Amino acid sequence: MRFHGPHACEEALARGELRTLWVAEAAWGRVGKLREAARAAGAVIHREPMEALDRRAQGIRHQGVLGEGSAFAYTDLNDLLATVREKGARALVLALDGITDPHNLGAVLRSAAAAGVDGVVLPERRSAQVNETVVRASAGTAGRVAVARVVNLGRALDELKEAGGWLYGLAAGPGSVDYLEEPFDRAAVLVMGAEGEGLHQKIAERCDRLLRIPMPGEVESLNVSAAAAVALFRVIAARGASR
Amino acid sequence: MRFHGPHACEEALARGELRTLWVAEAAWGRVGKLREAARAAGAVIHREPMEALDRRAQGIRHQGVLGEGSAFAYTDLNDLLATVREKGARALVLALDGITDPHNLGAVLRSAAAAGVDGVVLPERRSAQVNETVVRASAGTAGRVAVARVVNLGRALDELKEAGGWLYGLAAGPGSVDYLEEPFDRAAVLVMGAEGEGLHQKIAERCDRLLRIPMPGEVESLNVSAAAAVALFRVIAARGASR
Repeated sequence: MRFHGPHACEEALARGELRTLWVAEAAWGRVGKLREAARAAGAVIHREPMEALDRRAQGIRHQGVLGEGSAFAYTDLNDLLATVREKGARALVLALDGITDPHNLGAVLRSAAAAGVDGVVLPERRSAQVNETVVRASAGTAGRVAVARVVNLGRALDELKEAGGWLYGLAAGPGSVDYLEEPFDRAAVLVMGAEGEGLHQKIAERCDRLLRIPMPGEVESLNVSAAAAVALFRVIAARGASR
Repeated sequence: MRFHGPHACEEALARGELRTLWVAEAAWGRVGKLREAARAAGAVIHREPMEALDRRAQGIRHQGVLGEGSAFAYTDLNDLLATVREKGARALVLALDGITDPHNLGAVLRSAAAAGVDGVVLPERRSAQVNETVVRASAGTAGRVAVARVVNLGRALDELKEAGGWLYGLAAGPGSVDYLEEPFDRAAVLVMGAEGEGLHQKIAERCDRLLRIPMPGEVESLNVSAAAAVALFRVIAARGASR
């Protein structure tokens, strides 16, 4: 995983993920604090001409600072299940059924971080994974979200259900309920599908309830990241009101 | 304005904006319906080798179909003011104070279209304009939103206020109120600032109320398009509940 710019490197350092730091000569003095902190954390630091960093960055803005770190640290699903059991009715989990666009995944993770979810679940296959592009699209916030990567999303949902989670599938269509009518007064797992395709049938069938976001405009659907933000903050609003 | 792919061209045609259509030989048979409709609408149609389309598209996916059309048709602010006067307490307008990233603007317009806003106001300077990238990022929905482009955003807000609009500035900070406490029971103008900078001071000062979206997570801010979606659908929820 590569981090571009001082801010991304600071974020990576704060998460304990920064292993190597390249600093341009022209930026050396400006990032003294970052260099010291990185050295204290055991990172290797290189001083190079700006052109060398430009070559490494391959066109991505870096402001004279590049970092490289360990791979994204996924959370174990069992840890997430334990959190759901522990938090009970106030637990909030987001499950993503096949979001393949890394920018969308990054945007969803940023909203999930802002909403303070307990975790995000995504499948190993037919889904974007948390890579550099995703971290950048999340404005560096992806590292603050517990993301569990699972082999079989359906089975993970079954386990979340056993842990007390109530599965809400975001899907317009027959049998779906207006999301504003739901009190979200138990452990909630919001399940979101890919753009265009929506939820896979086997996933939709597992859901305890299908929710739709009624749209006054003529547009068929919100972008998946907009829908995630609207749904997550609706859960927060509904729970806040019931306190 | 350039449209890439059959879907974008169909959308442009539906909005009456398609003037020229290029179709690759390999795609000619596949898009017979689009070609007929474009011809009926008076568009000029060219048949070309795929390589010629590739050159025109400069790396953007086009599936053998490219279109060119008239510039984006902005709405006159006076028309939007008339709508606000006419709709009264149920009017909903989004004003964008300096969103410079075209992908963000496109995403915001898509959510605005889904929310069925009466219009969007954006300034001529220090703001992205509705170009091809924006239309693509809006999934082609930008054309369904009445976008008024104004020389002076402050003055436009004054006029919206005179038309009965209540100016809500989305800005965390001193004096701001939890957005969930607002009933939105009068004509609402949501004013959103640029990422990072937020609202300009002269714009914030004009607002009748500053609203914040409380975030349980540690993250400082939502992406501007996520915040727009959350705020717009909150207005809809609050109004729906009061009916």
